[in-house]
Amino acid sequence: MKLYDCTTAPSPRRVRIFAAEKGIELDKVQIDLANGAQFSDDFRAINPDCVVPVLELDDGTHITEVLAICQYLEELYPEPSLFGRTPAERASTIEWHTKIEQQGLMPMRDAFRNSAKGLKGHALTGPVQYEQIPELAERSRHCVTTFFERLERQLAGNEYVAGAFYSIADITALVLADFAAWIKIGLPDGAVNLLRWHQKAASRPSAKA
Amino acid sequence: MKLYDCTTAPSPRRVRIFAAEKGIELDKVQIDLANGAQFSDDFRAINPDCVVPVLELDDGTHITEVLAICQYLEELYPEPSLFGRTPAERASTIEWHTKIEQQGLMPMRDAFRNSAKGLKGHALTGPVQYEQIPELAERSRHCVTTFFERLERQLAGNEYVAGAFYSIADITALVLADFAAWIKIGLPDGAVNLLRWHQKAASRPSAKA
Repeated sequence: MKLYDCTTAPSPRRVRIFAAEKGIELDKVQIDLANGAQFSDDFRAINPDCVVPVLELDDGTHITEVLAICQYLEELYPEPSLFGRTPAERASTIEWHTKIEQQGLMPMRDAFRNSAKGLKGHALTGPVQYEQIPELAERSRHCVTTFFERLERQLAGNEYVAGAFYSIADITALVLADFAAWIKIGLPDGAVNLLRWHQKAASRPSAKA
Repeated sequence: MKLYDCTTAPSPRRVRIFAAEKGIELDKVQIDLANGAQFSDDFRAINPDCVVPVLELDDGTHITEVLAICQYLEELYPEPSLFGRTPAERASTIEWHTKIEQQGLMPMRDAFRNSAKGLKGHALTGPVQYEQIPELAERSRHCVTTFFERLERQLAGNEYVAGAFYSIADITALVLADFAAWIKIGLPDGAVNLLRWHQKAASRPSAKA
């Protein structure tokens, strides 16, 4: 198996952490997003959405989308479980994974791509050129902060994001928190549970992957 | 089990179709979104995100997010499978489910909520009031059409969205196509495979659920 990766981007980092937690070694091919390698004909044939990560199987199949890649790896390497061990735990994991992607990562993407000087004409990932909408960048920053407050309330009653167990939801949330900090959206003041959780998640060896 | 539902909204329809495919009968409680019942204190205690669907288990647990609800039902009622039967099929199902949600349903939501007269101050679901961004509505309509073209290419080589098998990805895409038509975003001209697929998916008895 081969992972199309980019060390500076948040989405492939999620797969790298997931694989590190399971001790899976993946061959990695770096795609130079900063210089537009994702728009080359070669890479479009691998993923028409022009984004990483992509997992290439030995039979040549390409799996895109982080959740699909991680679920596939979970089936091949079930231990340690990163999706929960019971139907209720798995439901909570998918529930929080979805919330973090849609209420956290996607607004963070919109905040970043609709304001960064280097991304004019690339307000969305993918092959279509879209102009930035500054008002959307502003609104999206507010959404990310609001979502951190929601996570703070969840973590007030739970050791990890989806419950009493570490899961893919913690990986998704860690990458959200770290990339948000990089674009100057910090954790809210007084979010003691979020801070406690972040220190714990960030100190796992996998966080360096 | 009890489903908090709203017959006119696209998201809970996805769970109703999923349950109908499996022959699961769910008690339903209607939440009157048009009159703001989702913002009541009672409903906020059930789902702080103020959206339906929510699945209430007999022990009082609430599961939110369509994918989490459907995966839970799949575990309880495995037949007929709606997530694929092999790791590769399941990966393709989750991959396409994610694309349809993030590249189809979310832009459709943005197109609708940032332009509908009745949704001023409610440009996003949830408890926070956000003003509409007309430029985002316009861009999002274009995104939905672009995604339909992507689906057309996928369906040119596949009977169903995720491959040779009917799955939750077809349910998600059907609800996207039907709600998009309602807000006057039709299938692209000449999208013969999408049209063939839509006629087939829409003619299943579950589509009326």
